[in-house]
Amino acid sequence: MTPEEFRRHGHQVVDWIADYLGRVDQFPVLSRVQPGEIRAQLPKQPPQQSEPFGDLLRDVEEIVLPGITHWQSPNFFAFFPCNSSGPSILGELLSAGLGVQGMLWATSPACTELETHVLDWVAQMLALPDHFQSKSQGGGVIQDSASSASLCALLAAREQATQGESNRRGVYCPLVAYTSQQAHSSIEKAMRIAGLGDRQLRRIETDTQFALRPDRLAEEIARDRAAGNVPFLVAATVGTTSSGAIDPLSSIGEICQRERLWLHVDAAMAGTAAVCPEHRLIHQGLEFADSYCFNPHKWMFVNFDCDCFFVRRRDALTRALSILPEYLRNTASESGEVIDYRDWQIPLGRRFRALKLWFVIRSFGVEGIQCVIRRHIQLAEQFVSWVGANPDFELAAPRSLNLVCFRHRGGDTINQQILDRTESSGALYLTHTRLHDELVLRLSVGQFDTQQEHLEQAWALIQKAAVQELGDLKV
Amino acid sequence: MTPEEFRRHGHQVVDWIADYLGRVDQFPVLSRVQPGEIRAQLPKQPPQQSEPFGDLLRDVEEIVLPGITHWQSPNFFAFFPCNSSGPSILGELLSAGLGVQGMLWATSPACTELETHVLDWVAQMLALPDHFQSKSQGGGVIQDSASSASLCALLAAREQATQGESNRRGVYCPLVAYTSQQAHSSIEKAMRIAGLGDRQLRRIETDTQFALRPDRLAEEIARDRAAGNVPFLVAATVGTTSSGAIDPLSSIGEICQRERLWLHVDAAMAGTAAVCPEHRLIHQGLEFADSYCFNPHKWMFVNFDCDCFFVRRRDALTRALSILPEYLRNTASESGEVIDYRDWQIPLGRRFRALKLWFVIRSFGVEGIQCVIRRHIQLAEQFVSWVGANPDFELAAPRSLNLVCFRHRGGDTINQQILDRTESSGALYLTHTRLHDELVLRLSVGQFDTQQEHLEQAWALIQKAAVQELGDLKV
Repeated sequence: MTPEEFRRHGHQVVDWIADYLGRVDQFPVLSRVQPGEIRAQLPKQPPQQSEPFGDLLRDVEEIVLPGITHWQSPNFFAFFPCNSSGPSILGELLSAGLGVQGMLWATSPACTELETHVLDWVAQMLALPDHFQSKSQGGGVIQDSASSASLCALLAAREQATQGESNRRGVYCPLVAYTSQQAHSSIEKAMRIAGLGDRQLRRIETDTQFALRPDRLAEEIARDRAAGNVPFLVAATVGTTSSGAIDPLSSIGEICQRERLWLHVDAAMAGTAAVCPEHRLIHQGLEFADSYCFNPHKWMFVNFDCDCFFVRRRDALTRALSILPEYLRNTASESGEVIDYRDWQIPLGRRFRALKLWFVIRSFGVEGIQCVIRRHIQLAEQFVSWVGANPDFELAAPRSLNLVCFRHRGGDTINQQILDRTESSGALYLTHTRLHDELVLRLSVGQFDTQQEHLEQAWALIQKAAVQELGDLKV
Repeated sequence: MTPEEFRRHGHQVVDWIADYLGRVDQFPVLSRVQPGEIRAQLPKQPPQQSEPFGDLLRDVEEIVLPGITHWQSPNFFAFFPCNSSGPSILGELLSAGLGVQGMLWATSPACTELETHVLDWVAQMLALPDHFQSKSQGGGVIQDSASSASLCALLAAREQATQGESNRRGVYCPLVAYTSQQAHSSIEKAMRIAGLGDRQLRRIETDTQFALRPDRLAEEIARDRAAGNVPFLVAATVGTTSSGAIDPLSSIGEICQRERLWLHVDAAMAGTAAVCPEHRLIHQGLEFADSYCFNPHKWMFVNFDCDCFFVRRRDALTRALSILPEYLRNTASESGEVIDYRDWQIPLGRRFRALKLWFVIRSFGVEGIQCVIRRHIQLAEQFVSWVGANPDFELAAPRSLNLVCFRHRGGDTINQQILDRTESSGALYLTHTRLHDELVLRLSVGQFDTQQEHLEQAWALIQKAAVQELGDLKV
């Protein structure tokens, strides 16, 4: 493909995406294909000769599209949002077009410096503690996901707790970490990966609002110390996956400070809300945190992957993750004047992900982002009032920002019916969780284009689904 | 940004990239900016209001571009290639435009099924053992990098060696892994991350061609068993980073089979050569491997990130990496009929990376890929003949496919001069390594557009740099 062919086909792809974005609300939100249905349409062997680009685009439309679950649909209320936007898509495109590898400062200084700079912007936008800014001993880096960020935090904490021995000798003492019963599975996964074992993770009891109980945390730590275990990390959550619960960071932070434990805070979804001053309460106590992450790829209009990960001390992170083989040595790194982000993450290579974040912040402006976040939260509030007005339904947890957990009072069977019927109607996509061992419906508002009309339609269908099959409302 | 604005700005970005690809050979290959120079041009605060898209593109041209090291330049001979191509960029663009999250089959069946399918294509293209195809008990998955793939292999091997205890209890026995002294730093990093400690990694001596010595491997294993250690993994390399050395997989594989050790093979750069039947010798003995990875984002025209990772037994991998919280439960997963790739990797979320790989294979056709690979290897051969014809220079290792390690006979100082002078001329970018404790120049041919004229110019300048300053040949 010559540059001129690229130009022509590039315009075609851009047009296809523009059209897609214009009709994304027309598709069944959850793909209806059966297992194996996509593969059955693909040739068993790769083509020996070049195929025309038009054939590729045709297959995207005819074969791929029916197999897509439309995360960008305004009727997507499942899981958490994984939203995107025009400026982000174009930032990703530019990153692919430049095709740089940002493992070292020298291998593209702009890739590193723009990242450091934009993460400082983000720290300002969220009013994060100063120690997360690059002018301090800490700073920020883009990771692929909160799972990877939490793993990096855990590795830095592990290495610090063993005075630099765990990288060399392996895990040789009974290190123990703490998180709430409502924390994301990635904390457990990180414990496994890091060779600590999930048995060494204490799942602390939560309160009536599903937030970690600091009193129970303190008790568990004391019990572990008495038993000869070595507490080293608390992973707190701002906005749990199930219900959006917010752990009390101040109380937890005081315990961590007293006990000298690393405090990692995962605000993957909820963090973005702190762009609005009136929601910064969610971060109360964050000054105690040694590390923090949130995902602009969830609720800040940056397409996956883009997790912003901040640490209080960058040397704690690089001590855990840096290795310098001869073939990566270079003058700039040895001067000590630059950041080499390969030492802040698991993989060696890295894309130029700061471009899309930069594009989004500049295209929206801080006020533009605030405006969308406020709309989403207001829509969730409105939904709560509708639930309250229907005696058949109830809230299953307090609304948390843009997330509503609710249920039909008729028990699990009818709630499962609502899930199945709304899903198969194609008109919206909800997912579930369990709270107090009851099936709970989750409605998460966060797709860029979700407006009041979409919420109204969703609520109408949910109520209908409680009493009858919905049929196929879309195609 | 409305769909119509996206269309307009998208065309602008595509045009910018087409122009960039047409002039990429005109830039100094290695960026000349000084540390801090990019950041100094950026506003300290994020903008409160939206900025016009034209301003973003202007800043890309004026601020970002000077800070780019041009990995896509035909004069880039450093490290390993991280090449790209038009179809790949457009596949990445489509992936960003669809904005799906492929963590579960259900969250976009096409994302999962296309990936499984295209990885079967790749296995056919490289003539990999049948046990890496999805019709067997194994299969393939796209990872971000070989570092992550090797970590996943190591975790699966660790869990298997401890009969499922290491995830639960942590690392409680002295597990030992083996790799060559020339292996990539990612193996050491994986040992650290996994809580095993790099002290438990044996760096096996290599032969005169820098390949792992199976006799030494067998001796070390015996010594470890005698000492009460528990050998569990050998990480072999096809194409080491320093010199492209190829470990003898057959002999290593026989040892692994006899000793019941997991054999992981990292062919990150070299693997692509197996697309050409005449180069499949590099994979002789791969039938012994439990896992294998190579990077289309290095030498198969797919932009970063795209590592293809294959395992013999998918259950060994998912036993190490799967966790199922309530909020991810769904009918399709519970049917057991589908693959959920979140269980094959470290992070939970994942992009639709199969699209770009599919686009590249279909746009080039297998023959088109073979054709470029053969050109690169032939250019490297030619370069070797030039080195041989100049008595001041010598090869420092046998040529390996597209990688030539060579040096001036005048010692480290003059070789360092050649590096510095060619680098500061802007006309080409070489990197170095050390072999037998001598500074060695590496010339890696792998950018898509590198032609004979670029090699000729590079060689002329290298010879000149041995005797004089080159000045500023570009800009």
